[in-house]
Amino acid sequence: MSGQTPEQWGAERQDEILGTLREFVAIPSVSTDPAYAADMRRGAEFLAAHMRACGLENVAVRTTAGHPVVMADWLHAPERPTILIYGHYDVQPPEPLAKWRTSPFEPTLRDGRLYGRGASDDKGPVIVALAAIAAFLQTEGRLPINIKLLIEGEEEIGSAHLDDFVAEHAMALAADFVLSADGATWRADLPTIAVASRGICALEVTVTGAEKDLHSGRHGGSVANPLQALSRLLASLHDETGAVAVSGFYDSVRLPSADERQALGDIPFDEAAYLRSVGAPEGAGEAGWTMLERNWLRPTLELNGIWGGYSGPGSKTVIPSEAHAKITCRLVPDQTPEATLDCIEQHLQRNCPPGVTLSVTREPGGAFPVAVPPDHPGLRLAMQVLEETYGQKTLLVRMGATVPIGGIFRQRLGIETVFFSFATSDEDYHAPNEFFRLERLRDGVQAWIRYLSLLGQQAG
Amino acid sequence: MSGQTPEQWGAERQDEILGTLREFVAIPSVSTDPAYAADMRRGAEFLAAHMRACGLENVAVRTTAGHPVVMADWLHAPERPTILIYGHYDVQPPEPLAKWRTSPFEPTLRDGRLYGRGASDDKGPVIVALAAIAAFLQTEGRLPINIKLLIEGEEEIGSAHLDDFVAEHAMALAADFVLSADGATWRADLPTIAVASRGICALEVTVTGAEKDLHSGRHGGSVANPLQALSRLLASLHDETGAVAVSGFYDSVRLPSADERQALGDIPFDEAAYLRSVGAPEGAGEAGWTMLERNWLRPTLELNGIWGGYSGPGSKTVIPSEAHAKITCRLVPDQTPEATLDCIEQHLQRNCPPGVTLSVTREPGGAFPVAVPPDHPGLRLAMQVLEETYGQKTLLVRMGATVPIGGIFRQRLGIETVFFSFATSDEDYHAPNEFFRLERLRDGVQAWIRYLSLLGQQAG
Repeated sequence: MSGQTPEQWGAERQDEILGTLREFVAIPSVSTDPAYAADMRRGAEFLAAHMRACGLENVAVRTTAGHPVVMADWLHAPERPTILIYGHYDVQPPEPLAKWRTSPFEPTLRDGRLYGRGASDDKGPVIVALAAIAAFLQTEGRLPINIKLLIEGEEEIGSAHLDDFVAEHAMALAADFVLSADGATWRADLPTIAVASRGICALEVTVTGAEKDLHSGRHGGSVANPLQALSRLLASLHDETGAVAVSGFYDSVRLPSADERQALGDIPFDEAAYLRSVGAPEGAGEAGWTMLERNWLRPTLELNGIWGGYSGPGSKTVIPSEAHAKITCRLVPDQTPEATLDCIEQHLQRNCPPGVTLSVTREPGGAFPVAVPPDHPGLRLAMQVLEETYGQKTLLVRMGATVPIGGIFRQRLGIETVFFSFATSDEDYHAPNEFFRLERLRDGVQAWIRYLSLLGQQAG
Repeated sequence: MSGQTPEQWGAERQDEILGTLREFVAIPSVSTDPAYAADMRRGAEFLAAHMRACGLENVAVRTTAGHPVVMADWLHAPERPTILIYGHYDVQPPEPLAKWRTSPFEPTLRDGRLYGRGASDDKGPVIVALAAIAAFLQTEGRLPINIKLLIEGEEEIGSAHLDDFVAEHAMALAADFVLSADGATWRADLPTIAVASRGICALEVTVTGAEKDLHSGRHGGSVANPLQALSRLLASLHDETGAVAVSGFYDSVRLPSADERQALGDIPFDEAAYLRSVGAPEGAGEAGWTMLERNWLRPTLELNGIWGGYSGPGSKTVIPSEAHAKITCRLVPDQTPEATLDCIEQHLQRNCPPGVTLSVTREPGGAFPVAVPPDHPGLRLAMQVLEETYGQKTLLVRMGATVPIGGIFRQRLGIETVFFSFATSDEDYHAPNEFFRLERLRDGVQAWIRYLSLLGQQAG
């Protein structure tokens, strides 16, 4: 043992921790694209090796029907709580590549930030949690509590196989609650913890006209243009007020109480500053709700991609055979992925213009919306540690995004998930030039050490 | 001299003519994509060399502000007419490559057809015209009339620089009329000549939301989605009846007389067979007009491409920063490209949804709609030769497609353009698996020989 405290160890090893993170980010572990399958495996193996180096036990890369899950544990604190630490090693695709200032998989330090795909979501926060564990094991030779780790490889594709995996390994994963290294903090200047996340469901639409691409002069006016049909169909999904125009879409949406709307209204949020931060000319969305309400309390139906016909240089006078769109919805209690997809598919079939045929494919990996009770002890402790770290009261917020694990762990293990991530939501994850703040790497390690330490003291 | 007649020479050299065509098709002279610039130059040089081999004089590859024009002449028939033969050596892009049965630039014989990009549009018909010229020069050492040739390299991009080029070389190009090797015959089983073609104008639309791609969970509901805005905007371009919903679009459209509609109705056209031939489930378009009327007499507004967001495997939960569409209109008398673009741009600006900004780029190369007087002598002769060749009365038809040269030659040289092409409109030009019928190669050479011969006899 080193004679250092875990806190000292964590503070002095920042360069080493950052070095590990850089190596981790350099692995292009893109889960959605089969072209990266070997890199996914490499990402899992790297993580497993690092876990062993931290001093964790029973480190294993476990196969699933999709990408592998990396597991480990340290269970030598009898009578103390057991937590399950969750994170993911897969990342979003790097496209559009042309918009990155530096290559997405060549992590680069700039202005106190580490730039690279996955730096913030979720490789940085995973390395933070592991550094806290190493800080105990490398100094005191033991952890103040029992820890299990489950780092998955399919978070960016909706944790498609995690539900099956957790169900199958329910005994081995049993814990008091889940502490998640994923799920970004709302704002950099304010300690916050997310207690709710929206669900998600996804589908792909293909509209087909003629069997082959046609010359738009020779055939224009005779047959339907799938691009035109698709535009009309997609435009029908929202009404003039920005609300989703799909019959049944809002049927099971829980309306917030006046108190809930009031609490949301009390959260400091500068709409103009937000719009500047994303470079948007103005806000937009469903009429009758504030921006935070639209993002946190209301479901959405978003087009994530449209393609068909010619998109190269110059012009090509073609009526394409096919046109495509990708759609996802963010869901709020008590919507379900299945029922939402049902009513969208019915809407699309009912509104398909003449002259074309429609095919709808449901993407796997839907997720339920979730919410953690505000008095959960793991959540109260997280609030306390953040208040100590930042000297400000921790605000409970919601997430517009989806972390399907909340629903999975509750359903399969009967436990809640507390988010304790040091990623920040402005760090351009899912966009070019993703980054992770170095001060959050430093603060995160200390906060996780404090959390594990306090949780151990609460026992008995 | 060989002692053969031009007709015998043409008949016996079919293999050689086909060989030349195969070499020509193997050159990927795609005008729209700068990546093929060297191949464009190679296509022009190949054509020039072949013209010299045919016995033509003053063969020259002339630079323009765009791709080069290939010119040649033979002017040793005093007191005889002078015609300007038109064609083009550029081709459409080969995409989508996956749909080709054989590689687009490896010309392949199958079932009496030559498959390859440009085989029908317009390399086959150009080689037909040159073979007829060679047939005279290689047997009789002279042509029955004076001939000038202008084979351009920008037909597939709207003959963008042809207007300037013709204006600049108006003296050198002076002729009695233009005989065009471009402009496909309407049907394979019926001798037809097109006497009208639709004009064209093109634009590209970009809708921009936030400055960067955004995570659809974190931001969905807060800001506008450019794909959704673009769909709404594009859907607004047509009404429920399939008519263009752009104010002013139809203002200058000449309505056909009852006689004209009757004449069109008398043309044999099997709608069901047409739909089968393109594999379309049903016809579609502007209500209140027959399919032929929609294609020949009515203008269209077609989407040729839409792109934005993610289109790769799996899903990506992104709100893209930008969404794009390419649009072309087919114009009929007396619409003009400029006025049409004006009213579309006004419509787009007026209908742009909130939360996004709109930018519109007008593509160069618009073209006026044109029509040839039915009593033009060059047209009457073409009708006669086709009737002799196929033993059936030649039908005068219109083209849904655009051949901008009609307008250019009329405006700059004061002469009409007669279409005398042996391409057929079902030969999948502008689509995968373009082909040219070998029997049309054979018939075409004989018909062009006959045409030149008869035109020489008419003189004096």
